[in-house]
Amino acid sequence: MLRSIRGSSLRQIQKRFNSTSVAATYFPQEPAQPVLQTESIPGPKSVALNKELGEVYDNHATYYVADYFNSLGNYISDADGNKLLDVYCQISSIALGYNNPELIKAAKSDEMVNSIVNRPALACFPSTNYKQILEEGLLAAAPPGMDRIWTALSGSDANETAYKAAFMYQHAKIRGDKPFTEEEIKSSMENKTPGASDMTILSFDKGFHGRLFGSLSTTRSKAIHKLDIPAFPWPKAPFPELKYPLAEFEAENRAEEQRCLDALESIIETAPTKVAAIIVEPVQSEGGDNHATSFFFQGLRDITKKHEVLFIVDEVQTGVGASGKMWAHEHWNLTSPPDMVTFSKKFQAAGFYFSNPDLQPKLPYRQFNTWCGDPSKAILARGIYQEIVKHNLVDKTAQIGDYLYKNLTTILSKYPHIVSNLRGENFGTFIAWDCVDANVRNKILLDARKLGLNMGGCGDYSIRLRPTLVFEKKHADIFLGILESVLAKA
Amino acid sequence: MLRSIRGSSLRQIQKRFNSTSVAATYFPQEPAQPVLQTESIPGPKSVALNKELGEVYDNHATYYVADYFNSLGNYISDADGNKLLDVYCQISSIALGYNNPELIKAAKSDEMVNSIVNRPALACFPSTNYKQILEEGLLAAAPPGMDRIWTALSGSDANETAYKAAFMYQHAKIRGDKPFTEEEIKSSMENKTPGASDMTILSFDKGFHGRLFGSLSTTRSKAIHKLDIPAFPWPKAPFPELKYPLAEFEAENRAEEQRCLDALESIIETAPTKVAAIIVEPVQSEGGDNHATSFFFQGLRDITKKHEVLFIVDEVQTGVGASGKMWAHEHWNLTSPPDMVTFSKKFQAAGFYFSNPDLQPKLPYRQFNTWCGDPSKAILARGIYQEIVKHNLVDKTAQIGDYLYKNLTTILSKYPHIVSNLRGENFGTFIAWDCVDANVRNKILLDARKLGLNMGGCGDYSIRLRPTLVFEKKHADIFLGILESVLAKA
Repeated sequence: MLRSIRGSSLRQIQKRFNSTSVAATYFPQEPAQPVLQTESIPGPKSVALNKELGEVYDNHATYYVADYFNSLGNYISDADGNKLLDVYCQISSIALGYNNPELIKAAKSDEMVNSIVNRPALACFPSTNYKQILEEGLLAAAPPGMDRIWTALSGSDANETAYKAAFMYQHAKIRGDKPFTEEEIKSSMENKTPGASDMTILSFDKGFHGRLFGSLSTTRSKAIHKLDIPAFPWPKAPFPELKYPLAEFEAENRAEEQRCLDALESIIETAPTKVAAIIVEPVQSEGGDNHATSFFFQGLRDITKKHEVLFIVDEVQTGVGASGKMWAHEHWNLTSPPDMVTFSKKFQAAGFYFSNPDLQPKLPYRQFNTWCGDPSKAILARGIYQEIVKHNLVDKTAQIGDYLYKNLTTILSKYPHIVSNLRGENFGTFIAWDCVDANVRNKILLDARKLGLNMGGCGDYSIRLRPTLVFEKKHADIFLGILESVLAKA
Repeated sequence: MLRSIRGSSLRQIQKRFNSTSVAATYFPQEPAQPVLQTESIPGPKSVALNKELGEVYDNHATYYVADYFNSLGNYISDADGNKLLDVYCQISSIALGYNNPELIKAAKSDEMVNSIVNRPALACFPSTNYKQILEEGLLAAAPPGMDRIWTALSGSDANETAYKAAFMYQHAKIRGDKPFTEEEIKSSMENKTPGASDMTILSFDKGFHGRLFGSLSTTRSKAIHKLDIPAFPWPKAPFPELKYPLAEFEAENRAEEQRCLDALESIIETAPTKVAAIIVEPVQSEGGDNHATSFFFQGLRDITKKHEVLFIVDEVQTGVGASGKMWAHEHWNLTSPPDMVTFSKKFQAAGFYFSNPDLQPKLPYRQFNTWCGDPSKAILARGIYQEIVKHNLVDKTAQIGDYLYKNLTTILSKYPHIVSNLRGENFGTFIAWDCVDANVRNKILLDARKLGLNMGGCGDYSIRLRPTLVFEKKHADIFLGILESVLAKA
């Protein structure tokens, strides 16, 4: 199944692989290849279990019912005993593979058990060990220049609490040291200005930032997420539509990014009410794995600085190593850090980072809720972070990403009538490509599943890779082999 | 410290107590009374730890730093080794006491460990055991007439996903079997009608339903929660302001409730856009522990049925036994169940119950997010539920609530110049009273804390009780003793 790539670049990449396999250390029993037990997936047990589940729980989106007791490393098991190589990983989560032994240790620790059975209302009764848990984990992993954290429960929750911080910050700047006025207090209780803000959060066309009411108002990826749900009248700006390969279309792409920057600045300048913050993903993931260059993101930083708009980077999907850096926005070499960076998925903990203490309201009970995070998730995130550091998994992900990208370049080039626009060069395993249409995309996903490969789509006709951080050359070769055999028959 | 109450009612109550103490079974080492190590609380260690925490995390609302390793049963330990009798319990959570041995077993189980390290994207890859976990726990605990569940992550999240279900349901009723129109699809992406809904969720004055953008738009308890945050222009209706004791003011209270029902119906009838749902708490908790009678709630059910408005009961704080019934709305004997009931806190899991399958959208990815709940929390909730059943803790809570209420009647009546309006008769331990003003309330809370009693406020000048479900006569007597000594000196 090995792909053959000629030339020195592959040899250079291969030399960079450590001789020891972290996956083999973690998972001596990891399957050597997919194990197929049923003709199709979902198999009969999966179908039966899903039908039962549907009697009590919304199961419209089920792929198949998974057996997490028999899943291991990069292989997810289903209810029928099929074991699939998983490059989707619970929509970009599962950082260290299924049933990672070090995380099992963390999950069995006294600290974890204690945090589960005594879940605290963290903002009122923080635990003696919470700062230590944060410092040894989530905060140690913080993006450069960010030393404060707000812990939340999901990506949507992380973004919405970041939005709240942005609104409170912008109003505090106007209000200064003056107290709230009677009119503000009274009108806020009526959901009216001036107490309720008429400021906005600006997001980008095809961006995805969550599904609660504030976050969904900034989500612009697909109508199915938004139909029938009330939304705030917040602005959106165009996101660059780049042409691939990037090197070939440098001038056009630069012009496209400048067009989008100009449009953004114009929207900010002419908006009827102040834009409190903009939010952007380093790669628009649900929207189709749309990339932009450092030029564009530096432009966002410059424009937001100039207009005193906060700059929120949504790293819910890109964060924690997958891009070949701990945080994808580190690829940009910004002249000054973003104002807030949100996270979730791969840490299985959620929240946002910031450095400006003014983004923390001065009064209690403004940024507040009962839980204010979850120590058990922060403990798990610490375990994930420490393993990433110990095994140098961010660099390893950069290396395996290069290997995948180069091989995919070769493979996809053989099937230009069905696949194109490979994306994610020098961006770890955060790789995607387009299919000619949604039907072809969906057929490729299903055919691959039949051969034991679990992939996920994004956008209207794209396929995205979201493997673990212990996805190695042996896994890549199996993946490439299955993909090529599927493409060959498509 | 025993309160002396004469007459047969106390003897009857005492006879109803089981001779065995569940608390003593769970916690043979539970302190017999508060343990005080420092002059004031927070003590020096708590102050130092909190200062450190404040360097990285918003700690404006900290009471003191808690030591959850040394907390046990009904006693919370702080960083200085003080052990306080806790009748606030992480804002109405901690159902079975700190470090409950049965929950520790659940937390150490293979199922729990597996669910923590392999957190699934439940709607795409549900686990083989998820239905069983739900059926043995959360669903077994479901309110009468409700057999379906949506799992979420917090009370706010539970309410917002319930709102989304309500909006999608109401639009589907209008749309029928027709597909979305092009105009709906296009306008939804612009956050505009008709694709984005202009329907509303109606809530009640002083209600609290969470702090994300949709839930905060229905929260009407305090301006500090809402100031500077954008809000939807959704309607609110008056909530009855009852006079206590209820038996004395029956006619006035009935008239007040009828006034509020009439106002609600008028708002629904004259609203510029359709009210999709109303949401109400059985007891407005954050808003000051405001009760209403079954007459009022039956009226809400009748009006909502008549106008085809959905009726959501927010049991985030009242649910899971504290009211002396598993769900507080069971006190109402409604002629037909609510449409949705939301839950969180005492189950440490969140979501909503419903029975009408039409509240589940027909298409995938409408009610959807990455996690769609958390099996580890559902496992914990199962453990909590099974212990509640095993030890008959709902009935026991009803009994100890009666004991508390009767004794509080006696005690508070001695200090009518500072405390009044005792609430929560025949409503388990969900008891509260007013203080003459906020200063007196806050002084009572602080004085009690100095004597080793952890209480919480609500509303502008009220004190609420939210003990565990294993709060027994011995704890009640200590609580009553401390409270009386504080009131005597106030």
